[in-house]
Amino acid sequence: MTEPCPAPMVALAQRLADSSGSVVRRYFRTPVAIDDKADASPVTIADREAEHVIRTIIESQRPDDGIYGEEHGTKNLDAEWVWVIDPIDGTKSFITGRPIFGTLIALLHRGRPVLGIIDQPIVGDRWIGVEGRPTTHNGQPVRVRPCPGGLGAAMFGTTSPDLFPGSDYEAYRRVAARVKTASYGGDCYSYGLLASGYYDLVVESGLKLYDFAALVPVVTGAGGLMTDWDGKPLDANSTGRVIAAGDPQTHRDAMTVLAG
Amino acid sequence: MTEPCPAPMVALAQRLADSSGSVVRRYFRTPVAIDDKADASPVTIADREAEHVIRTIIESQRPDDGIYGEEHGTKNLDAEWVWVIDPIDGTKSFITGRPIFGTLIALLHRGRPVLGIIDQPIVGDRWIGVEGRPTTHNGQPVRVRPCPGGLGAAMFGTTSPDLFPGSDYEAYRRVAARVKTASYGGDCYSYGLLASGYYDLVVESGLKLYDFAALVPVVTGAGGLMTDWDGKPLDANSTGRVIAAGDPQTHRDAMTVLAG
Repeated sequence: MTEPCPAPMVALAQRLADSSGSVVRRYFRTPVAIDDKADASPVTIADREAEHVIRTIIESQRPDDGIYGEEHGTKNLDAEWVWVIDPIDGTKSFITGRPIFGTLIALLHRGRPVLGIIDQPIVGDRWIGVEGRPTTHNGQPVRVRPCPGGLGAAMFGTTSPDLFPGSDYEAYRRVAARVKTASYGGDCYSYGLLASGYYDLVVESGLKLYDFAALVPVVTGAGGLMTDWDGKPLDANSTGRVIAAGDPQTHRDAMTVLAG
Repeated sequence: MTEPCPAPMVALAQRLADSSGSVVRRYFRTPVAIDDKADASPVTIADREAEHVIRTIIESQRPDDGIYGEEHGTKNLDAEWVWVIDPIDGTKSFITGRPIFGTLIALLHRGRPVLGIIDQPIVGDRWIGVEGRPTTHNGQPVRVRPCPGGLGAAMFGTTSPDLFPGSDYEAYRRVAARVKTASYGGDCYSYGLLASGYYDLVVESGLKLYDFAALVPVVTGAGGLMTDWDGKPLDANSTGRVIAAGDPQTHRDAMTVLAG
């Protein structure tokens, strides 16, 4: 058994998600100023304010912990415990009024994700993954589903064809051509739904640590696999090419097809 | 002024959406048997039961009206009034547990869509478009937004790159390369959000009458444009290539880029 995640840390993570959700709900479907960041992705006052609320609580409760936030930067990254925050994963969904974005809160212990929350504050969906415990959705344990038949039987999801850079695009097209159904949109939400047994496979590329750190405990705690495209564990040095699968055969098939 | 849509018809349409929503909510995120239809699209017991409930009410209240349903076929299509029903538009979203599908209820008067409802029964979003009246979202009038800057400033949505047949795919790729942001997933939901001023442009292809009939009154009643790719009005003989835009300049730009 690896180092567990202490119960007070799980309670604190839930409090962070509660506070962030209050901010995000207040701004959803209101006219919010949209900025373009350096990487041309949109960011809103809701992102910034939600991350600010989360950071303020962490700094008051756990002043020595590190923080890695999408909007307000990094702090104490060599601490034993580091919080990784994406206040609104799926900003395009947020700004187009679609309740399929999520707030991502992860906790790294010596670099390894040991806790993850995917919170959808409009619909009211919260997945919590904690190393060594079953993943829950709104308090109830959830499991991935088997996918007999492999890739050809899989319901596949990915956010957007436009997010696969370079030759990754062709690799994704090969997967999309082989699966039973492909559907689009959803960002982190798809990984929660995979943990609950609604998707069989999610493949993405170009993800940052704050995009995937929270997803790993959620998916693996539900019995799924989540690795990079080579089958390696995801950590701060990963390339951002991600496979999540409910069934080991689907995971192997996806790796094979992605490799070409 | 063209023939108005009588108020009792609007009330009946709302009752149909209420009844359908009760069925759909009962099946959402439950294990439902999924069949493959002849066209390989998935259909569930929820689709069939929701359409059955709607048809039963129409047949009891308006026995002479025509009905054009996605799941249970057609009846009296030469009647003055014809109801066009898609109980779950976005079945892939429904079966993957994503609350961005919708129930579509349209009323044709002598072949022209004069009433449309887009109902999302999980989140609780209902758009109602009635010829000659402002479109409402949950009872409040909504308007499309202007998009100064044309296509390059537009937030564009479409359900899936895989739904553009043949050369339509290349046409869509040209649009996706020119807009400010592209996002995916959503089916009918995107058109409701366009009517509310969150999207500037939606382009799709391969739509059937039951996919687009309800959308036209919602989009046009909010001040938007909704036509085929050549700018022609949408009716039962349309090719299923659809443009919806909030701003006339965006609509013109999209037509030009789609034409190549």
